[in-house]
Amino acid sequence: MTERKKTTIVLFSGDYDKVMAAYIIANGAAAYDHDVTIFHTFWGLNALRKDEQIETKKSFMEKMFGKMMPRGTEKMGLSKMHFAGFGPKMIKDIMKKHNVLPPKDLIEMAQEQDVKLVACTMTMELLGLQKEELLDGIEYAGVAAYLGDAQDGNVNLFI
Amino acid sequence: MTERKKTTIVLFSGDYDKVMAAYIIANGAAAYDHDVTIFHTFWGLNALRKDEQIETKKSFMEKMFGKMMPRGTEKMGLSKMHFAGFGPKMIKDIMKKHNVLPPKDLIEMAQEQDVKLVACTMTMELLGLQKEELLDGIEYAGVAAYLGDAQDGNVNLFI
Amino acid sequence: MTERKKTTIVLFSGDYDKVMAAYIIANGAAAYDHDVTIFHTFWGLNALRKDEQIETKKSFMEKMFGKMMPRGTEKMGLSKMHFAGFGPKMIKDIMKKHNVLPPKDLIEMAQEQDVKLVACTMTMELLGLQKEELLDGIEYAGVAAYLGDAQDGNVNLFI
Repeated sequence: MTERKKTTIVLFSGDYDKVMAAYIIANGAAAYDHDVTIFHTFWGLNALRKDEQIETKKSFMEKMFGKMMPRGTEKMGLSKMHFAGFGPKMIKDIMKKHNVLPPKDLIEMAQEQDVKLVACTMTMELLGLQKEELLDGIEYAGVAAYLGDAQDGNVNLFI
Repeated sequence: MTERKKTTIVLFSGDYDKVMAAYIIANGAAAYDHDVTIFHTFWGLNALRKDEQIETKKSFMEKMFGKMMPRGTEKMGLSKMHFAGFGPKMIKDIMKKHNVLPPKDLIEMAQEQDVKLVACTMTMELLGLQKEELLDGIEYAGVAAYLGDAQDGNVNLFI
Repeated sequence: MTERKKTTIVLFSGDYDKVMAAYIIANGAAAYDHDVTIFHTFWGLNALRKDEQIETKKSFMEKMFGKMMPRGTEKMGLSKMHFAGFGPKMIKDIMKKHNVLPPKDLIEMAQEQDVKLVACTMTMELLGLQKEELLDGIEYAGVAAYLGDAQDGNVNLFI
């Protein structure tokens, strides 16, 4: 019996293109029969936000952060060539033309392929994000759990 | 007989300094007798572009992208302290003074050391880049081929 | 007897939030009994700078770089939502409220846990940084030493 290979990704970035790269690698690894974990921390947490506004009790600071950060991938900018929102529009048009799945669909596919999506609880606290605001079916953990997965990982990336 | 160690790098970034870091690590690993692969995706593809303009048939959008993205490393900006092009000039002057090889030469050295340079075909399609525009002697592949290399890698990095 | 696991991080970035992420992972791995190395290169070197000004003999260019780059983590900006310094202030206020350690303290904790902090000598030369300007108790090495550590690493990240 051979053991399953393992891929882990720390998704720190909240850029549209980097989230896309992370999820393309994750879905590829899952199709390759790897156990795959994406640990969403800092701005990467925004990829897990539901796109509607959820009523929650927040401090003033937490409300500010909540408003300034994108709710879900569709509102994210590019890491390069953002050009005040023109870059993302171009990329999205081209992606549609070439039948490339947008991050939103890549995340759904990852969930269907049993990729483990984890939200970093420490950053959730820092940025004032609450469980109700994040996608259903994800897990919550800290850096120790990430390291537990990563130390047996064959492919470990920080994106 | 001991097996050769393996290093793989996903080069996502198109910043002068990050491309430099990627190729310094790659050349170091090759000198260490590792099998080395650099998988160029998204903005990292620009590191593989020839610096002359190549005539190709492109859609309007593809032409726009082609013009806006740097042709080769010499036209890239810095990830930090870019200062409207002043930062790269400073860095290049200092590199020359200290006999540090520019990315262009590091890429050539990597090819001489048999580092496998791969262009991500999905991103090529997205950004409208064609084989004639990229360096000779490189390979073309998708995320599955990358994962095939990375799952046996000793050092796997995303840059 | 089981061998100790190993974590290595290339800290390329000089952003407050990325430095924080790197040191949180490093301290977590050290608490997990990993041998941990952080190899500071390019802008990541700034995390190792003492915050007072040190008198050194430098060329004009080196002085410029020295002045423009942050001396230590407290002066660093965020990779996202910097908002002309407002973002870092917000983050720092929230961190204090939630008892999250700032990078400065995370670095101290790393040193207490015997995390090996390495400064990349090639980049020190490029940016004109001298040993007197960097924290005490760190090591100095090049990419070959990094690869020597990383090729046996269980978790290798580029941040």
